[in-house]
Amino acid sequence: MQKPKWVVDKERDKRAAAAETVWLFGIHAVRDALLNPVRIRLRLVVTRNALDRLGEAVPASGLEPEVVNPRKFTAPLDPGSVHQGAALEVKPLNWGSIDDRCIGAEGRRPLVVVLDRVSDPHNVGAVLRSAEVFGACAVIAPTRHSAPETGALAKTASGALERQPYLRVTNLSDAMQRLRAMGYTLIGLDGTGAVTLDAALAQVPGRAVALVLGAEGPGMREKTIATCDVVARIDAAGDFGSLNVSNAAAVALYAASRG
Amino acid sequence: MQKPKWVVDKERDKRAAAAETVWLFGIHAVRDALLNPVRIRLRLVVTRNALDRLGEAVPASGLEPEVVNPRKFTAPLDPGSVHQGAALEVKPLNWGSIDDRCIGAEGRRPLVVVLDRVSDPHNVGAVLRSAEVFGACAVIAPTRHSAPETGALAKTASGALERQPYLRVTNLSDAMQRLRAMGYTLIGLDGTGAVTLDAALAQVPGRAVALVLGAEGPGMREKTIATCDVVARIDAAGDFGSLNVSNAAAVALYAASRG
Repeated sequence: MQKPKWVVDKERDKRAAAAETVWLFGIHAVRDALLNPVRIRLRLVVTRNALDRLGEAVPASGLEPEVVNPRKFTAPLDPGSVHQGAALEVKPLNWGSIDDRCIGAEGRRPLVVVLDRVSDPHNVGAVLRSAEVFGACAVIAPTRHSAPETGALAKTASGALERQPYLRVTNLSDAMQRLRAMGYTLIGLDGTGAVTLDAALAQVPGRAVALVLGAEGPGMREKTIATCDVVARIDAAGDFGSLNVSNAAAVALYAASRG
Repeated sequence: MQKPKWVVDKERDKRAAAAETVWLFGIHAVRDALLNPVRIRLRLVVTRNALDRLGEAVPASGLEPEVVNPRKFTAPLDPGSVHQGAALEVKPLNWGSIDDRCIGAEGRRPLVVVLDRVSDPHNVGAVLRSAEVFGACAVIAPTRHSAPETGALAKTASGALERQPYLRVTNLSDAMQRLRAMGYTLIGLDGTGAVTLDAALAQVPGRAVALVLGAEGPGMREKTIATCDVVARIDAAGDFGSLNVSNAAAVALYAASRG
């Protein structure tokens, strides 16, 4: 008997995840990962100078550094990566399930960001930063067609990748339904929204909110839009222009964290 | 008699500006510049395919396109520029003076963004987009140590570079004093701010506001901070993390545009 396609997909994703390692780079990203107690670390490649700059983080990590000549920096990074002489091979973080992560903290509205196929690592990195600043429980994205946890993403996230849950799910609509079952109101953000974000938030004061954003250009997929409770727009002064996706997320997180 | 340093600086900046040209690239950025009636255009280098995609914008511009073979794309762009077969040499836009640009529009609070030495073109591009969306009169930055009007900035600005005034000034403190004389309250944004942004805005309902931001890392210069009326922080949920500068600008513009 043939396995259904979704089982095949899920098994393939699982195998890929088990085999996957990531090279982080840059002093800040490497230091943050060395100091993260739950991060599984495999190899640290550094120049003498970078080793000095990383200081106590290296012995604290228990990892034996491979000290290399700056002219023969051997870590397998993309060309153009500004590594500052430090590269660290790690396993992606396992943030657990939506049920575990999205229950919220005492004393403030539970917030989640859902990203539908946002593939630019700089945008996702910036969203992770903003999510951390405004206390979101998690950023949720589909396993495929989203920016993976890479060195470039980690660098843009500026430390937030180690602290801000970034959950990758096989099926985004299912994840959104799960959030709804947990009590979340799903607010999609799109320039075509019939109501303003402020009006949508005013409908659910203090209640758990998931802010759903699509990639620039294509926007949210039809099924994603259909799964939202409401599609809202961020009020603009004129008819021209649109916000970059990470800026839209920051504005929405700010607005939602205040109500 | 020797000229004072500031005169020498100003004359040098003027000469450099007169000689300066910029290569814009990518279908969207090139089309927007071709359709901008005040943009001075010098050369258009395109592939046959890009020429088709630009459509009516090319004849409308009155510029004779130089059609090239995709394998021999001759425009002098930085390596890695995603040009999509279209490059346009232009003069930087002349947006005029602070007095002309920052008088504000009828019916809403005049808003200005001041960037102190933000040198990353992607950040400045994203700020221009947000400034346009929230109806800011201008983005003001010092001539030196700021991201210049480049192709990379234009691409990130996604059309906003053609529409959103981006004023470069020789002396930022003088420009801030000029804004104050025009009636602007100067609100610096920094994580160390003694008051929240909301509290600072509540002090000046409906009044003209200039939002002042520094580069990530160094932040605002001391003199810039001293010239602000107040330094405010964007309220965060925890002690960790900070917003990317363009996200901080977007949040501040959103907050200010509502009060």
